[in-house]
Amino acid sequence: MNEAAMTLDGWYSLHDFRSINWPAWKAADDEERAVALDELHAFLDEWNQIEESKQGSTAVYTIVGQKADFVFMHLRETLEELNAIENAFNKTTFAQYTTKAYSYVSIVELSNYLAGSSEGDPMQNPHVIARLKPALPKSKHICFYPMNKKRDLTDNWYMLSMEDRRSMMYSHGMIGRSYAGKVKQIITGSVGLDDWEWGVTLFSDDALHFKKLVYEMRFDEVSARFGEFGSFYVGNLLDQESFSQLMKV
Amino acid sequence: MNEAAMTLDGWYSLHDFRSINWPAWKAADDEERAVALDELHAFLDEWNQIEESKQGSTAVYTIVGQKADFVFMHLRETLEELNAIENAFNKTTFAQYTTKAYSYVSIVELSNYLAGSSEGDPMQNPHVIARLKPALPKSKHICFYPMNKKRDLTDNWYMLSMEDRRSMMYSHGMIGRSYAGKVKQIITGSVGLDDWEWGVTLFSDDALHFKKLVYEMRFDEVSARFGEFGSFYVGNLLDQESFSQLMKV
Amino acid sequence: MNEAAMTLDGWYSLHDFRSINWPAWKAADDEERAVALDELHAFLDEWNQIEESKQGSTAVYTIVGQKADFVFMHLRETLEELNAIENAFNKTTFAQYTTKAYSYVSIVELSNYLAGSSEGDPMQNPHVIARLKPALPKSKHICFYPMNKKRDLTDNWYMLSMEDRRSMMYSHGMIGRSYAGKVKQIITGSVGLDDWEWGVTLFSDDALHFKKLVYEMRFDEVSARFGEFGSFYVGNLLDQESFSQLMKV
Amino acid sequence: MNEAAMTLDGWYSLHDFRSINWPAWKAADDEERAVALDELHAFLDEWNQIEESKQGSTAVYTIVGQKADFVFMHLRETLEELNAIENAFNKTTFAQYTTKAYSYVSIVELSNYLAGSSEGDPMQNPHVIARLKPALPKSKHICFYPMNKKRDLTDNWYMLSMEDRRSMMYSHGMIGRSYAGKVKQIITGSVGLDDWEWGVTLFSDDALHFKKLVYEMRFDEVSARFGEFGSFYVGNLLDQESFSQLMKV
Amino acid sequence: MNEAAMTLDGWYSLHDFRSINWPAWKAADDEERAVALDELHAFLDEWNQIEESKQGSTAVYTIVGQKADFVFMHLRETLEELNAIENAFNKTTFAQYTTKAYSYVSIVELSNYLAGSSEGDPMQNPHVIARLKPALPKSKHICFYPMNKKRDLTDNWYMLSMEDRRSMMYSHGMIGRSYAGKVKQIITGSVGLDDWEWGVTLFSDDALHFKKLVYEMRFDEVSARFGEFGSFYVGNLLDQESFSQLMKV
Repeated sequence: MNEAAMTLDGWYSLHDFRSINWPAWKAADDEERAVALDELHAFLDEWNQIEESKQGSTAVYTIVGQKADFVFMHLRETLEELNAIENAFNKTTFAQYTTKAYSYVSIVELSNYLAGSSEGDPMQNPHVIARLKPALPKSKHICFYPMNKKRDLTDNWYMLSMEDRRSMMYSHGMIGRSYAGKVKQIITGSVGLDDWEWGVTLFSDDALHFKKLVYEMRFDEVSARFGEFGSFYVGNLLDQESFSQLMKV
Repeated sequence: MNEAAMTLDGWYSLHDFRSINWPAWKAADDEERAVALDELHAFLDEWNQIEESKQGSTAVYTIVGQKADFVFMHLRETLEELNAIENAFNKTTFAQYTTKAYSYVSIVELSNYLAGSSEGDPMQNPHVIARLKPALPKSKHICFYPMNKKRDLTDNWYMLSMEDRRSMMYSHGMIGRSYAGKVKQIITGSVGLDDWEWGVTLFSDDALHFKKLVYEMRFDEVSARFGEFGSFYVGNLLDQESFSQLMKV
Repeated sequence: MNEAAMTLDGWYSLHDFRSINWPAWKAADDEERAVALDELHAFLDEWNQIEESKQGSTAVYTIVGQKADFVFMHLRETLEELNAIENAFNKTTFAQYTTKAYSYVSIVELSNYLAGSSEGDPMQNPHVIARLKPALPKSKHICFYPMNKKRDLTDNWYMLSMEDRRSMMYSHGMIGRSYAGKVKQIITGSVGLDDWEWGVTLFSDDALHFKKLVYEMRFDEVSARFGEFGSFYVGNLLDQESFSQLMKV
Repeated sequence: MNEAAMTLDGWYSLHDFRSINWPAWKAADDEERAVALDELHAFLDEWNQIEESKQGSTAVYTIVGQKADFVFMHLRETLEELNAIENAFNKTTFAQYTTKAYSYVSIVELSNYLAGSSEGDPMQNPHVIARLKPALPKSKHICFYPMNKKRDLTDNWYMLSMEDRRSMMYSHGMIGRSYAGKVKQIITGSVGLDDWEWGVTLFSDDALHFKKLVYEMRFDEVSARFGEFGSFYVGNLLDQESFSQLMKV
Repeated sequence: MNEAAMTLDGWYSLHDFRSINWPAWKAADDEERAVALDELHAFLDEWNQIEESKQGSTAVYTIVGQKADFVFMHLRETLEELNAIENAFNKTTFAQYTTKAYSYVSIVELSNYLAGSSEGDPMQNPHVIARLKPALPKSKHICFYPMNKKRDLTDNWYMLSMEDRRSMMYSHGMIGRSYAGKVKQIITGSVGLDDWEWGVTLFSDDALHFKKLVYEMRFDEVSARFGEFGSFYVGNLLDQESFSQLMKV
């Protein structure tokens, strides 16, 4: 196999962005709303239990602006589990008060550029496993965006040598590392799974770090010459208490 | 005729992606839902019989994420049959609980680059016929995406010599062959039929193979310099039993 | 006037793509549907009479896939007539059960590259007039797509000399001629009228010819370097009998 | 100030494209429709009076095809007046039977390339004022499209010298002048006001002139290398009598 | 840290563009409308108080044309406050009569190119703070557009040296300064926060200045070679009195 394809792959990921249909929610009677919220909290409880039993992880955040009102980011062992989650949620009364905004299917991935240096079978390495099957952070803020590596005439990432790519990715990674402790970054690969090649999900207690990190990286050759970016979604942590608060009318 | 146009063409293909209107489905009464499900299963039965009598083939899969909830991929001898299927389905009660998500019209094709080496009339060759008029696999997962060959200044596939194209396609095909037994690939041509030049439908029991195969191919010059890709749809096998399960509310 | 602008222009053309609102159609009572179908057939009859009196021509085809359910392609002497047709149709009860899918405004055109060789006033030549004001074929299949000639840095059609353009169009036309008897091609110009520069409408009794013709042309320098293509719509002949059949629920 | 920015600017312009909601219009009772038409005609009368008192001008045309059913093109002294017109219209009963299709905000402009030759203060020149604050023609046909000057690597209009731009615009203008008496052209600038840099509105008694003019210009270097075009809207004059006729059901 | 990333950042910003659902608003009874307007004015009052206490600032303007009917531009200390504002507004009765049109999330920013010259800790400089946490002007007109710096082959802003970028930005800034007193410009950075890299919000008592400023800048190399622009939104000041007037039916 081509060395370039040697990624390490972990849990499948589904980002499920939703908007709230406020007129319908306000028009519902108290009992209907109570039923809907009970369902929501039952799901949130269930997802917490799955996370505690290390069978997956789910992050729940609001989204600022009109693109969406909230996002569920689910990590699970299989595509079937992710599909089951979305279908179960779609059948709830609560879901009837939401509309689809955007979704993204991918899989937690460690790049071959960086992973290449570890010795032995990486899938037996607990540090690697912890990164491939992570418990998602409970940071105050989330930032998600999908991206490609460009293939445009002389700026074609996939026509570069492995050595050139590795060297550029190393310098790129150094910027990321300078934000260690400030920004937690989950890279999910989506070649063959969704419309972009990667999803990037950032977590931080200070949303300004998102701006600083992505802006600094933009001057790095990997992003400057080869990065193509989709929409950016940014939001705030939504725990069960604040989700109830959000839905209060 | 230009040698480049010498493809072998088999059954016409219609990928019909649909979303479920869950609020309407939940609001329907039990009797209405039973009628709708009976219609659905009558169609699924009919499509099975057509497949058994080798007059066509139909694959049914869920789609993960918000792009669609399920897809019917129909192969039939004529465009008229495909049109009749979609119209008949659209008239069902079940279809009233779905919305259109995406569709793709194409025709199963064997490329002239690879087919060229067979001797005699290929349309008399049962191996060729089996590939042009295939029974679609019942693998656990499906992946569909449409694609073009780029025509952008110095990266113009259609301005290359036949020899260059054949040589690049050969190396491209070798990657595909290294996934033999893991991924089944159906190429359908859609020049003159739909918005992209080809549709690619992959089947595998392990969705991770989709990612590995498409990523590895991306470093191959055919894809790296000349591949343009549309949206990717990925999903799980939906047999009659699991379709009933999906619709249970 | 610049020689390049010397096209011959015939009837104005309106492609009117529509989808059927099946839930509403099924919910209508028998009487309402009968009224709607009577209106539809009255229009189809009227359009037939206009065609017989050589004051225009109308083709009616289904469209395969979700882009639309059917298309009316109207040719008439003036924009006012086309506008009157669409407004009259929009006011029918039948139209209330359809939704707009796409439309295209253009005018039947003979290219100056080919027309240049005829002697005398071409508008007095009955063969030319027959091509500018044609009776549309009743072939089994239709294919429509809009297109531009590219203007992208070194691939700029409009910066080429007339001689280069004429020579490339000649070779391009030769491919079209090799499909004589198999594919009937109507070119309509839409510069200044709609979003692309030309519409191409193909008619054939074998839809596979659409794929073969368009694919073969794609290797021709005119298409390979300079062709930009919009969406492709393909469908089957819809005579009055089969239209009634289509609408039967 | 940079000489390039020395345009002469006249009335603000709002193109307001609308579609008719025919099912709702047909479902309305006669009285409701009469009220709505009275409102419409009151506006049309008011706009006529404003035109007669030279405080503005309004053109009303149908649009052929599905993009819209009609367009109001309003010229007024201020953005506030244009905003007041659209808000007043939106509040009418008639407007409830229409849907938004497209709009364009711009300002009548004389290019610095051509205007530069006039002596004295051009804003005191009645010929200049007549072109900046024109009474819109009542020609049989309208054509509208927005456009940019390209900024793409070596084809970058804004990196050319003033001399090169002036010389190309001169030759471009000569084509326009050859259509004098056939096509009336209103250029409106929209840099900083809407999504394209200019709007072009053409008026003619023969819609074929639109095609011939725009096609001939496309071979001119200004358009060939530097023109980027949006959607084209074409239609027929809609006077009060024909508007009533259009709405008759 | 890379010098390029040294921006100064102030208040977070949310541009919230909305359209009015006029049919629903007209169909509401007087009491319902009175309740809705009371809510609206309560919010406007609250936002005024926040501005007076220097904890934020909010601008309210109409938008001309069909893109939106009005915009709220909110500046606040945190993303949580912005999210709370939009959620609180979404829950009002007034909001039920509006639809989402567009939104933009960003943060007031002073560029490192210009800010670099100030001495000492700029965040202790009251002039800097006043620009990072400004009271938005009450000018007659607003203009908003998002933009990127291009990364296209040889026109790649992020591959330029800091010196080249600083020199181009200096000349760019000089144009802006020549409009001092005519146009007030608020730059908000959105790398990592929304789909473009910056938002530009202009305020002026004469909307023609928007056109002149943006057009003049377009010839400047920073814009000519490197500027990519999104949609432009332009409108008129909407104070509480005129907002009531706007909603009167």
